[in-house]
Amino acid sequence: MSEQKDLNQLGEFGLIDHLSNEFTTIHPSTIKGIGDDAAVISVSETEAMVVSTDMLVEGIHFNLMYTPLMHLGYKSVVVNLSDICAMNAKPEQITVSLAFSSKFPLEAIEELYKGIKAACDVYKVDLVGGDTSTSYSGLTISITAIGRVQKDKITYRSGANEYDLLVVSGDLGAAYMGLQVLEREKEVFKANPDIQPDLEGFDYIIKRQLKPEARKDIVEFLAELEVVPTAMIDISDGLASEILHICKSSKVGCHIYDEKIPIDGATSLAAIDFNLDPATCALNGGEDYELLFTVKQSDYEKIKGNPHMTVIGHMTNENDGCYFIDKNGSAITLKAQGWNHFGQ
Amino acid sequence: MSEQKDLNQLGEFGLIDHLSNEFTTIHPSTIKGIGDDAAVISVSETEAMVVSTDMLVEGIHFNLMYTPLMHLGYKSVVVNLSDICAMNAKPEQITVSLAFSSKFPLEAIEELYKGIKAACDVYKVDLVGGDTSTSYSGLTISITAIGRVQKDKITYRSGANEYDLLVVSGDLGAAYMGLQVLEREKEVFKANPDIQPDLEGFDYIIKRQLKPEARKDIVEFLAELEVVPTAMIDISDGLASEILHICKSSKVGCHIYDEKIPIDGATSLAAIDFNLDPATCALNGGEDYELLFTVKQSDYEKIKGNPHMTVIGHMTNENDGCYFIDKNGSAITLKAQGWNHFGQ
Repeated sequence: MSEQKDLNQLGEFGLIDHLSNEFTTIHPSTIKGIGDDAAVISVSETEAMVVSTDMLVEGIHFNLMYTPLMHLGYKSVVVNLSDICAMNAKPEQITVSLAFSSKFPLEAIEELYKGIKAACDVYKVDLVGGDTSTSYSGLTISITAIGRVQKDKITYRSGANEYDLLVVSGDLGAAYMGLQVLEREKEVFKANPDIQPDLEGFDYIIKRQLKPEARKDIVEFLAELEVVPTAMIDISDGLASEILHICKSSKVGCHIYDEKIPIDGATSLAAIDFNLDPATCALNGGEDYELLFTVKQSDYEKIKGNPHMTVIGHMTNENDGCYFIDKNGSAITLKAQGWNHFGQ
Repeated sequence: MSEQKDLNQLGEFGLIDHLSNEFTTIHPSTIKGIGDDAAVISVSETEAMVVSTDMLVEGIHFNLMYTPLMHLGYKSVVVNLSDICAMNAKPEQITVSLAFSSKFPLEAIEELYKGIKAACDVYKVDLVGGDTSTSYSGLTISITAIGRVQKDKITYRSGANEYDLLVVSGDLGAAYMGLQVLEREKEVFKANPDIQPDLEGFDYIIKRQLKPEARKDIVEFLAELEVVPTAMIDISDGLASEILHICKSSKVGCHIYDEKIPIDGATSLAAIDFNLDPATCALNGGEDYELLFTVKQSDYEKIKGNPHMTVIGHMTNENDGCYFIDKNGSAITLKAQGWNHFGQ
């Protein structure tokens, strides 16, 4: 099966690069095509629209055994809005397409839509279109989100410079630990359906897994603080993977510091419970949907002490490489071990 | 299974209405949400963007037994561009999301992308984003198309008035007859794989099924002729269904004439071969991706004799109802018998 090996070797990002390789863009309105969190389309001299799309597949991206459909609807919207926020834009519209097998009763689809509506209400976005279809198996959700941004505020992955500070919103690793707990309890339940799942004390991390939020508030905070990040990305595949995306796109290196990575106490406790290093969960866990961005050193005073943002390192010369500095001061080469769903 | 019955009773359009019922739009930029061929988003005083999305599911929307992957890629793009054209807009960008099972080798996905690229080249649209994922079974393709239009040129389904002329581009029923031939030869092949499929003489109708085109040229012709249709829709579910959409949205009735419906000779021959009435194929067949539109009587001189457009009837008062006038002059109530894939 040499072909399969090819797909696995490429991975998701490699596959997208490979497939989109021969495509060029011709419209002057296309400011940015493939290769960032969202495409950027010029709509006037000063404004642009950003467009992002994601497909979620049952059994690959979600497990209905422990994912309530309402939460799934909410999360499906949020992961797309997060991409819009990662361009420093404000989400305004979404479209939602669904394919589902006949095993889903109308009530199930209604639950899913309740979650979609809740997300639309919370984030003030309009559902403007979509498509519904049957499928032979399972549920597939495809959402496209559209946002708006002033052209001089757009943040790409490619704008980071040497000496810029690397900043992350919120805390990391919680969604990954939430998933570990849910998977463990699923196995316990499968072995003995009489045993009630033991989720006590795990509220925060389970919520982070099942009902993440997009950091639209950070985009607003940055606007209030008059800080335009030099580069930005959202953390869907794990901190390490996203940092490397910024470094590669911006042609810079970086130092990030173990002791600076924001990890909630509940995440650390769960990690220890599972014999995992909390920092590893933050680096490789994914699904945090926090924003990772770089700012000029001169903006440090504006964000210093802000409870929503943590400086975790700084950018270096490209030739200096990308390093994780552990608590002993040892520099370890940063590697992306995020989830490759073509691999396994 | 009362729930299933509910879904079947609702049908696709009923389901979308039902699910989107509780959603309201709040952004001033959202000019039109759900309910037309595409959503309309204001981008400046004079311009709007239109956004449409479609999901194609293996086994539901296409059969890989007789659909070459390159044609499938092409068609997936075209059906979305057709929706953009139906708003009298010009398509400029698309995003493409794919989910496919591990049975697909890289070469298969490359073939699919060759077709996507061919459509991008022919229609001059930019591929600006997307997503790829594995799935547990089959292939799912979700495409979002974005177009641009002057606000005073946007055509909704709702703008038709009494006495307007009803016009259709190209010819109808061919894609449906192409499907019948392909399905027949598939059954022959399944019964005896040594028999070569007999597709001779069916080139035109098979091409209409496997490689339809979006009538971007009609949008350009109309602009040159300085005709802005009062209402427009593309024919994806069959002429009858689309006429009724216009009548319902515009609150008008209509008379359409059997003898006026443009049907290619090859379509008629195939219909007779299958013991079908050609007009029925045009009315209920679907997948023609021609444009159906209404124009003011005063625009008749501009489109008269145009080989790409045929006047097939006129709009009447809402209270007069929607009628198909057969060759004997009998008026038959128009009914949508288009494809309901939640049914059966």
